[in-house]
Amino acid sequence: MDLESYFSGFVDGEGSFCVSFNKSKRHKFGWDIRPSFSVSQNRENSLTLEKMREYWNCGFIRPDSSDNTLKYEVRSVKMLVEIIIPHFEKFPMMSKKQEEFCRFAEICRMMLDRKHLTKEGFNAITNIASKLNLHGKKKFSRLGIKI
Amino acid sequence: MDLESYFSGFVDGEGSFCVSFNKSKRHKFGWDIRPSFSVSQNRENSLTLEKMREYWNCGFIRPDSSDNTLKYEVRSVKMLVEIIIPHFEKFPMMSKKQEEFCRFAEICRMMLDRKHLTKEGFNAITNIASKLNLHGKKKFSRLGIKI
Repeated sequence: MDLESYFSGFVDGEGSFCVSFNKSKRHKFGWDIRPSFSVSQNRENSLTLEKMREYWNCGFIRPDSSDNTLKYEVRSVKMLVEIIIPHFEKFPMMSKKQEEFCRFAEICRMMLDRKHLTKEGFNAITNIASKLNLHGKKKFSRLGIKI
Repeated sequence: MDLESYFSGFVDGEGSFCVSFNKSKRHKFGWDIRPSFSVSQNRENSLTLEKMREYWNCGFIRPDSSDNTLKYEVRSVKMLVEIIIPHFEKFPMMSKKQEEFCRFAEICRMMLDRKHLTKEGFNAITNIASKLNLHGKKKFSRLGIKI
């Protein structure tokens, strides 16, 4: 069994690469940008989430308040860029989720380089993100972010 | 990338091993026993289903009438026993779904050996199935099958 390929297959089905934007007076340009990689699963089958957390040695598992599932989540931009993103570049997903992942990776790397703190970088990120979260509940375009 | 491990990971998250019982006058003991292996996915990410069908070279992909997804399904007992079951024995799933799979495999092999056509075999199958479909909509125990 090849663990890396197994995790890529699991995430292809159950994983999510999102960037959320929350209004914040404490953050530059008034927006807190939060990328997150997450994988949900019902409690009975949660062992795979634990194995992933153990293997990547980052992130945390918590109950998902919206339903009776558990969620493995990595939010640290540094961990995303150094651990999670290289994994899915080496062991890519087969479905279109890989395209979303590539946009997600681009945003995370820009943020680690602190480019979101410049006007040009911030606008580039919002532009990429508008193509990323198309299936989410909060469609980015509705937020109408302009700086 | 190891395709076999990838598929096991994908099925760990998205797959289902079920045995349904439908009343039928044409079948011995009045019940049509139908094992099925299925994997659902939304249409955008359906490429992985196509890759699985191609790789295993059995089963079919069809729209799931209950929602806007596609479902890859294998129903042939012969294909299940000869192709699908050996895969998940060689590349097992990490979660508790593997336990359900083992019960499913036992039922399929008994059926290929035509044991469901004997009273003893039929009762053994209903006994194993009662522990298998615990999370399904149609709980087996509700069917109250007795012969």
